[in-house]
Amino acid sequence: MQKITLSTAVLPFLRFNENAKIKSADHEPYDDKVLRVAIMGLGSYGNRVAEAMQSCKRAKLTGVISGTPSKIKDWQSKYNIPDKNCYNYENFDAIKNNPDIDAVYVITPNALHHDQVIRVAKAGKQVICEKPMAINAKEGQEMVDACKKANVKLLVGYRMHFEPKTLEVIRMRKDGEFGKIMFFQGQTGFTIGDPTQWRLNKKLSGGGSMMDIGIYSLNGARYMVGEEPVWITAQETKTNPEKFKEGVDETIQFEMGFPSGAVASCLSSYNMSNLDRFFMTGQRGFAELWPATNYGPIKGRTNKGELTQPHMTHQTVQMDEMAAIILDGKQPIVPVDGEEGVRDLKIIDAIYEAVRKGKRVDLK
Amino acid sequence: MQKITLSTAVLPFLRFNENAKIKSADHEPYDDKVLRVAIMGLGSYGNRVAEAMQSCKRAKLTGVISGTPSKIKDWQSKYNIPDKNCYNYENFDAIKNNPDIDAVYVITPNALHHDQVIRVAKAGKQVICEKPMAINAKEGQEMVDACKKANVKLLVGYRMHFEPKTLEVIRMRKDGEFGKIMFFQGQTGFTIGDPTQWRLNKKLSGGGSMMDIGIYSLNGARYMVGEEPVWITAQETKTNPEKFKEGVDETIQFEMGFPSGAVASCLSSYNMSNLDRFFMTGQRGFAELWPATNYGPIKGRTNKGELTQPHMTHQTVQMDEMAAIILDGKQPIVPVDGEEGVRDLKIIDAIYEAVRKGKRVDLK
Repeated sequence: MQKITLSTAVLPFLRFNENAKIKSADHEPYDDKVLRVAIMGLGSYGNRVAEAMQSCKRAKLTGVISGTPSKIKDWQSKYNIPDKNCYNYENFDAIKNNPDIDAVYVITPNALHHDQVIRVAKAGKQVICEKPMAINAKEGQEMVDACKKANVKLLVGYRMHFEPKTLEVIRMRKDGEFGKIMFFQGQTGFTIGDPTQWRLNKKLSGGGSMMDIGIYSLNGARYMVGEEPVWITAQETKTNPEKFKEGVDETIQFEMGFPSGAVASCLSSYNMSNLDRFFMTGQRGFAELWPATNYGPIKGRTNKGELTQPHMTHQTVQMDEMAAIILDGKQPIVPVDGEEGVRDLKIIDAIYEAVRKGKRVDLK
Repeated sequence: MQKITLSTAVLPFLRFNENAKIKSADHEPYDDKVLRVAIMGLGSYGNRVAEAMQSCKRAKLTGVISGTPSKIKDWQSKYNIPDKNCYNYENFDAIKNNPDIDAVYVITPNALHHDQVIRVAKAGKQVICEKPMAINAKEGQEMVDACKKANVKLLVGYRMHFEPKTLEVIRMRKDGEFGKIMFFQGQTGFTIGDPTQWRLNKKLSGGGSMMDIGIYSLNGARYMVGEEPVWITAQETKTNPEKFKEGVDETIQFEMGFPSGAVASCLSSYNMSNLDRFFMTGQRGFAELWPATNYGPIKGRTNKGELTQPHMTHQTVQMDEMAAIILDGKQPIVPVDGEEGVRDLKIIDAIYEAVRKGKRVDLK
């Protein structure tokens, strides 16, 4: 797959090729080739995904799982979801017997993913899980194993893996247009609001900024450089221990080394603005994405000029592509499977370990 | 000085105010108010400084010190320097008795600065020393002490301390326009050529990229954030041990923490291109300089828009400003004295220590 370029592999699909024999997102009848998705967790990001799916050609919202009956009612009327496709956290194992639902997209607090994903797998449904897929690599691996055992696919919500400018930079790197890669910089962070939200509650989040926004820099380092890190160093800084309690990191800087000798310098923060920048330099060229990971439009340039790939709603593209992965066995350019999620979690584990030990952690 | 703005303190001078009662750079007669400078070390940077001084209003090249007679001849004819103002490394102590020379600008390999600066001080001449002022803080302090004892000023060639866009960012930070500073990133490096040059010879350079180009990120972190770091971590990476021998660092990443809780992430490299970027974010705004430290024009922007201060040849501005510091006791916005140089060297010492120990080094 390494040599397939955007123009031959991705863009025709991204352009919503009119020749595709797929029905558009009218609400019935369901088409065999459309992935029928229930969303678990009807929070703000769940809403964003549902909205975006209205423009999908191959994925369709057909069910919901929530602990809040009023939210279910709102979604039912907004998305025309029948009662029989609505579940709560007690009864959703019964989804097993629901022929209207092919897959469940788990969009709940991080610490809940593990048990929920395993229950969905046991119900025999395909799983898409928001990132981070779990709160540590051990849990992530158990989820991968459970899905394998249940013979269902497990995908992780890495929306940037389908973003056209990101993919163009990856194509250029694979084609050697930057020369040997020397350095990657990823700076992701934002100033988080409401101190009572689940993201700042370690029991639900499993950590702090690193789990939520730092993972973009980490994951970005891997797909931009195209290698797996062999060492990690990390430094934590906390300026507001009231808001960012024990175990909830406010700001982490981390550095990585890769087998080729390339290095990365990354920043993860819940207390900084104006970040969201990727930069990579090789011996023959460079790429900058800024913003690199927000909902877009992503902007970027390389030594060859501005990146001009058109913006499309990330979650729409993601869900269409994930439908193709699940339904057709399509291979994405950058993996989005459970193993990919576990790789990030192993490195996050190592980052927290490097912070604790105050020294470099070597990765296998 | 904190509240003096560019428009009142610096720009009138930078605009070469026609009211200034200073003769322009005609070659005679010397004016009492002009700093008459001998350059020690006639290499490429010495040449650049000499060229730039031709446009100075307050500094004038009047002498040379070199071990290469042919270079002295070239410079004599180019800059109209009489034989009596030419010295070599054996006899330059005699400069003591030369009334045509007020100051010596030492532009030789780093490891030579210590002895040369002390000899110049003992000869009773003002000293300007290229950065790094020495190869470690101990030597730097001895130079400061020697100049104090000899009652001469010691300035370090920090040309960016007079650069208008840099000064505007510093003004904005001092005036609170970025809010509380959270993060600084400095990435300085280039792909160094000729492997036989003195910069890659530890005996002459005292180290590698960190001494030569990394110091810009380090010094930049200090003047941009406006604080002194309290801790340092650092990681060294070497991909070409043939070219970058023992003790000559190819690439160093280093991180710093400041008393306010602000952090910095910096990169120093002799084997990367497309760098030279400063970025700083605070709770209310940000600044980017890219390029940040090359010979310019420096480009930059903040949350308020593009920085539009005009480019002037850095070395011209530096030498005019240093003349004002030496002759008039002018206080620069960012210090350029020997103590400032020693502060950088203490941190460079700590960076090398952090690399050696593989853990954080706390600074007093």
